[in-house]
Amino acid sequence: MKLSQLGEFSLIEEIRRATPVGRGVRIGIGDDAAWVDNTLGSSLVTADLLVEGVHFNLKWTSMFELGYKSLAVNLSDIAAMGGVPGYIILSLGIPAHFDSKQVALFYRGIFALAKPNRVSLVGGDTNVAKLLTISVCVIGHAPYPPIRRNTARVGDDIYVTGTLGDAALALKFLLHRKRAKRRGALAQLLRRHHRPTPRLAAGAALARRKLATAMIDISDGLLQDLGHICKASGIGASVWKDQLPLSRAYRTLTGKDGIRYALSGGEDYELLFCARPRDRARVRKLEGIAHVPITRIGTCVPAPLGIDVVDDSGKSLHTSITGHDHFTK
Amino acid sequence: MKLSQLGEFSLIEEIRRATPVGRGVRIGIGDDAAWVDNTLGSSLVTADLLVEGVHFNLKWTSMFELGYKSLAVNLSDIAAMGGVPGYIILSLGIPAHFDSKQVALFYRGIFALAKPNRVSLVGGDTNVAKLLTISVCVIGHAPYPPIRRNTARVGDDIYVTGTLGDAALALKFLLHRKRAKRRGALAQLLRRHHRPTPRLAAGAALARRKLATAMIDISDGLLQDLGHICKASGIGASVWKDQLPLSRAYRTLTGKDGIRYALSGGEDYELLFCARPRDRARVRKLEGIAHVPITRIGTCVPAPLGIDVVDDSGKSLHTSITGHDHFTK
Repeated sequence: MKLSQLGEFSLIEEIRRATPVGRGVRIGIGDDAAWVDNTLGSSLVTADLLVEGVHFNLKWTSMFELGYKSLAVNLSDIAAMGGVPGYIILSLGIPAHFDSKQVALFYRGIFALAKPNRVSLVGGDTNVAKLLTISVCVIGHAPYPPIRRNTARVGDDIYVTGTLGDAALALKFLLHRKRAKRRGALAQLLRRHHRPTPRLAAGAALARRKLATAMIDISDGLLQDLGHICKASGIGASVWKDQLPLSRAYRTLTGKDGIRYALSGGEDYELLFCARPRDRARVRKLEGIAHVPITRIGTCVPAPLGIDVVDDSGKSLHTSITGHDHFTK
Repeated sequence: MKLSQLGEFSLIEEIRRATPVGRGVRIGIGDDAAWVDNTLGSSLVTADLLVEGVHFNLKWTSMFELGYKSLAVNLSDIAAMGGVPGYIILSLGIPAHFDSKQVALFYRGIFALAKPNRVSLVGGDTNVAKLLTISVCVIGHAPYPPIRRNTARVGDDIYVTGTLGDAALALKFLLHRKRAKRRGALAQLLRRHHRPTPRLAAGAALARRKLATAMIDISDGLLQDLGHICKASGIGASVWKDQLPLSRAYRTLTGKDGIRYALSGGEDYELLFCARPRDRARVRKLEGIAHVPITRIGTCVPAPLGIDVVDDSGKSLHTSITGHDHFTK
């Protein structure tokens, strides 16, 4: 049924019915505010705003995938603090011509990721808007002191989880409506684009073991997000080009773009963190615990050296490739 | 400076600098997530999404007022649970041609209401969007059990705080570009429209004294929001037309519209609550404690009687006036 027929309050009622009852939720959807438990006495809070035409394109993104990804990017922020997510507050601005089935599909995408991570939708707002607008806020807790951006030190190793550039390379194929000869490889990249995996186990394990000296999730591209750590910590960084973890699918399809997307493509949602050299063996062990590859890709250097990308022979790329800025492009 | 020149990260830095350091904020703006204290072990959470052209019009709303009101509507939801607000998470989608001064003004409007209520801005998201998009999430706590919508009983009295219809009548003047002869009266209505007062003291006092059997804030119009209480509680309501609290400015300017806006105009952000008849004296006392007029406007009746508006002679209005639904209009 079109939302213009269904009406706001029937829609809210449909959403309420579809929402699983969650742990710690004393009052969920349907009142002025939700009421939830926060047993640790402190909360982690993060939010993302996604607008049609800026952050996603409904031509190539299904409503299910959009729901999944909207939650994933927020869980990734909680992971980057070493926290555990608990509650979702979701506000949607929806064009009135949308069908309630599309909205239901969006929520199914949310729940598909929420359920295995034991996160509960507890409230939000639903409104009409010209362009589909998604605002997600996630509240979590920090069983261990959160890992910040501003605490990396010169001499620390630099690591990333997973592989880099897959989501951005997928977007290139989507934007140029390119078909790849290697359809299996493209399918893998597209999955990484549409369903990023928030690295919650890795983030929490790093916090529990106090292994990361600084951490951020890669949403705007490796170099840009590394730049945030460097600026906040007052250091520089040397990144080893030949050590960047690339997926087989990425290597198959990147062509002459090489490592461009791995360095500066957005939406990896992998964790980028620093750790002391003496903890290398302990970091390596985490791969098995968090079920994700962890690769050492560089080292923290004094601030005047800036951020440099070097190859195995030590030659600098003098890269001017940067990441994404929403206002300046 | 235009945001397209300033860039996303300089804007975030400007916002961070302008944000007062708040109580209980362990990590504020600038990391992947904020980290805040929650001493009571539970949280109230509410959110609102406001989109240009749907919820506000920049032709007659200043950025300062918009900031003020965006926070006010969320604080009103916390008030309607009887809670105490603590933290703000603000996500903004901003057209790139906006000037950073306009954005700064918006934040000043937020802080103007946040400061006296001891609420802290702790995080959010800033993004480019075609239309100005504001998503506010407020986290608070509930020192006493929150007051719900679904717990009113037949025989309870019905009360409202403050006066009704002012904001909606103001909007009529704004929409029709009407000038009132009584400019002082119009100025008062406009102030109610642009700077609604969240009734936090009244809400908290009602919760502390366990006086309200059910409560909601009036955002979509008295009859519609009373309808939410009735539907959730399984009751009906009789509203006394001649007892509705109208401001002097409203009486001066309403003309032939009469009580139309008081019954069905939106954006009053007053509290609508039910209480036991035996508590009338205790409710009356609250006026002095919460510094707001509280008016008894009706009584809860059995569900089959529905919601009716009657005058002093007992004659029914058989009103079909309803409130606001974002999708169906």
